[in-house]
Amino acid sequence: MTEQIPDYYLVDNLTGQRGQASKLAFPENLEDVIDFLAQARQAQCGLITIGAQTGVTAATYPHLGEFLMDMSHMNQIIDYDTQTLTLTVEAGTPLTKIYDFLADKPYFYAPDPGAKNATIGGNAATNAGGMAAIKYGVTRDNIRGLEVVLANGSVLQVGGLNIKNASGYDLKDLFIGSEGTLGIITKLQLKLRPRPKFKQSQLIGFNRLEDLAPVIYEILASNVQPSALEFFSKSGLSHAEKYLGSQLVDINGEQLLLITVDGNQQEAIQADNQTIYQLALDHGAIDSKILDKQEAEQTWRLRDNMMAAIIAKDIVEGLDVVVPINKITETILKLEQLATKKGISNIFFGHAGDGNIHASFMKGNLSDQEWQERLDDFLDELYAEVKSVGGLPSAEHGIGLAKKHHLSETFPSDYMQALRQVKKAFDPDNILNPNKVIDI
Amino acid sequence: MTEQIPDYYLVDNLTGQRGQASKLAFPENLEDVIDFLAQARQAQCGLITIGAQTGVTAATYPHLGEFLMDMSHMNQIIDYDTQTLTLTVEAGTPLTKIYDFLADKPYFYAPDPGAKNATIGGNAATNAGGMAAIKYGVTRDNIRGLEVVLANGSVLQVGGLNIKNASGYDLKDLFIGSEGTLGIITKLQLKLRPRPKFKQSQLIGFNRLEDLAPVIYEILASNVQPSALEFFSKSGLSHAEKYLGSQLVDINGEQLLLITVDGNQQEAIQADNQTIYQLALDHGAIDSKILDKQEAEQTWRLRDNMMAAIIAKDIVEGLDVVVPINKITETILKLEQLATKKGISNIFFGHAGDGNIHASFMKGNLSDQEWQERLDDFLDELYAEVKSVGGLPSAEHGIGLAKKHHLSETFPSDYMQALRQVKKAFDPDNILNPNKVIDI
Repeated sequence: MTEQIPDYYLVDNLTGQRGQASKLAFPENLEDVIDFLAQARQAQCGLITIGAQTGVTAATYPHLGEFLMDMSHMNQIIDYDTQTLTLTVEAGTPLTKIYDFLADKPYFYAPDPGAKNATIGGNAATNAGGMAAIKYGVTRDNIRGLEVVLANGSVLQVGGLNIKNASGYDLKDLFIGSEGTLGIITKLQLKLRPRPKFKQSQLIGFNRLEDLAPVIYEILASNVQPSALEFFSKSGLSHAEKYLGSQLVDINGEQLLLITVDGNQQEAIQADNQTIYQLALDHGAIDSKILDKQEAEQTWRLRDNMMAAIIAKDIVEGLDVVVPINKITETILKLEQLATKKGISNIFFGHAGDGNIHASFMKGNLSDQEWQERLDDFLDELYAEVKSVGGLPSAEHGIGLAKKHHLSETFPSDYMQALRQVKKAFDPDNILNPNKVIDI
Repeated sequence: MTEQIPDYYLVDNLTGQRGQASKLAFPENLEDVIDFLAQARQAQCGLITIGAQTGVTAATYPHLGEFLMDMSHMNQIIDYDTQTLTLTVEAGTPLTKIYDFLADKPYFYAPDPGAKNATIGGNAATNAGGMAAIKYGVTRDNIRGLEVVLANGSVLQVGGLNIKNASGYDLKDLFIGSEGTLGIITKLQLKLRPRPKFKQSQLIGFNRLEDLAPVIYEILASNVQPSALEFFSKSGLSHAEKYLGSQLVDINGEQLLLITVDGNQQEAIQADNQTIYQLALDHGAIDSKILDKQEAEQTWRLRDNMMAAIIAKDIVEGLDVVVPINKITETILKLEQLATKKGISNIFFGHAGDGNIHASFMKGNLSDQEWQERLDDFLDELYAEVKSVGGLPSAEHGIGLAKKHHLSETFPSDYMQALRQVKKAFDPDNILNPNKVIDI
């Protein structure tokens, strides 16, 4: 069975490769999901669950003629429960819809991943991270419960409104981050929090990347808990400046930290920011500037648009490796050297408080062939370097198809075997997003 | 093969029942664990991993002639890493040793479960909760990584020093709370946090239990985040008063909330406590008292000793059910009625901020037979009531042998099947703590 399926579903947004798929459905409800899954089983075809296609690991790329299930019609906010501080939504609900719904309410959903038009189901499937993770955790930490359809068609409610749970194995956290390979997430119960009344950002300037390390350490070891702690270079940010036609505030130093502190007492936030200010200048920073509201909005908008600006300009390989927090600057310096040696232009930025490095490598003037040859070789060396300091191939984007090889190179065979056992336990016939994350 | 095994291991600390075991070992290191596991496999016997026997669900009770492995010799603090704020310890390390080690350091391990002499491995195996969970999470939220020996003898490092992780399935959280049935935890990497500089407690008095609900709700929905939010009755606390020979501070009201706020600015904490004070008096409290340091220590010591005081006096069935936070007082009132109807004397206390109810039922003057008959019947009704409001049989003690039946009554058969699939994936021969949590 074939039908006309739009390129949106068939062409990988990073490599431009074209896959093929057997069928495309837009379920309206749980019954439609169960029914479409049964059809896929019947046809002995894999089934790929699709959010908003913002993924960057080919996790929804159909390489085996799969059935495709676009969740965008299941986009309703089902319940706003102020008694338990829980928001129940369908899996296809865009993040923006959730933010908009909560905008005038006293509670907020804390995670703040880069792709705001992603669906919440996609966020759960990849355990999306983002700017707020340093204080509020990643998507995993902000999901109370899930409704999941298993490969055999049964429906589980995992987790839920109970805040504590020592009642059997933690199934909820197994489905979160499993990239649609263990079950189909159809509904989510999200944790809401009282919105902090105040927030304040500051920008800190450094001469060299390696000067950041002591200040990051001092902040994390201090009694101040920032709600965001980002790093980037002025030259990296210049892409966003051109893209948005907006300029960074005046600050000395090529390497920058952007920090936000939030809370309920204005004086406490100011005191915390003052602590960070002093601590930065005492430990190698050359400049530090507490931003007023307008400056902060502008600076964050620049930071938020870095990836979009880079992608708009060039073919980009964007990574999201993670290393232990004390290895972050030394790892970036090594990866930078490695890229320069291979003649690959590069930009590094990311979440300094989490050890999460966004490394962007750009094709520039290289021919398609040169680019691919240099890249493959380079990436093997890069992931080996990350592994050597105890890091992992993905902090928040997931593995998908693109990083499967690097995942299996990172972990010992016993570990990979344990992953396969989990997959086999939940999906013995390899129906759900087959051959993504791991091979069976 | 049999040997003389002390009653400490054979007699269940709650029911007094005597089991039997084939062998007892005290591994000194990872190799000893792997070796003893191989011996158990060879003998086709189950293997029970034992911490400090502080559990209350018969999770380490040998009912099948198992091999017993006491982890108390593996009790070393291996690495205090201030660069990544991680403490690496062996699984048999007592909580008290961890607290003592950190006492003069600027960092702390946040979880504060009732049984301070428990081992950290036992805490991980049951996902122990405690007083600090409302702000700092349960044990799960404070473990970065585990070293685990699988049933087949292979050794996995799951999780680790990386703060974020979207690199394959979340194995770490699967082992946490699995009560020794999926793997043997041998080493843990614990999350440390900068110690808050200040804390302040207050006590709030109410006439009736149902009056607590609006105040709990208002606190949780406010911008104040307490680090503890406990409830108990004066009559319940009187057991601890007698036990310790110490008296509660003067406060009006039979039902009490005990709240702590911590942080780094004394003024901010005082402001938060003032907010709670006003909010309590505006929503039905009849008295509220901010405690000085000595009063706070004394009140917390009384609260900490409630369970010990009750157990010292009587045969007790102690539960740790959890319900959605908005159902807590109505559930307690129903359970209280149910107990009274059955002629079973009862004390309720617990973690008001988590919906976690510690219900203690006392044998009193009942004969052994009367007690057992009334109890079995009563517990079935009690767990059914908890289930009917969306609650769970265990918040923090686990399932073990004692609550297996109630677990399977709580979840639908598809859910129980998923739990069994996980067990079979990791322990196909049912070697690790067999027939605990679930039956295969």
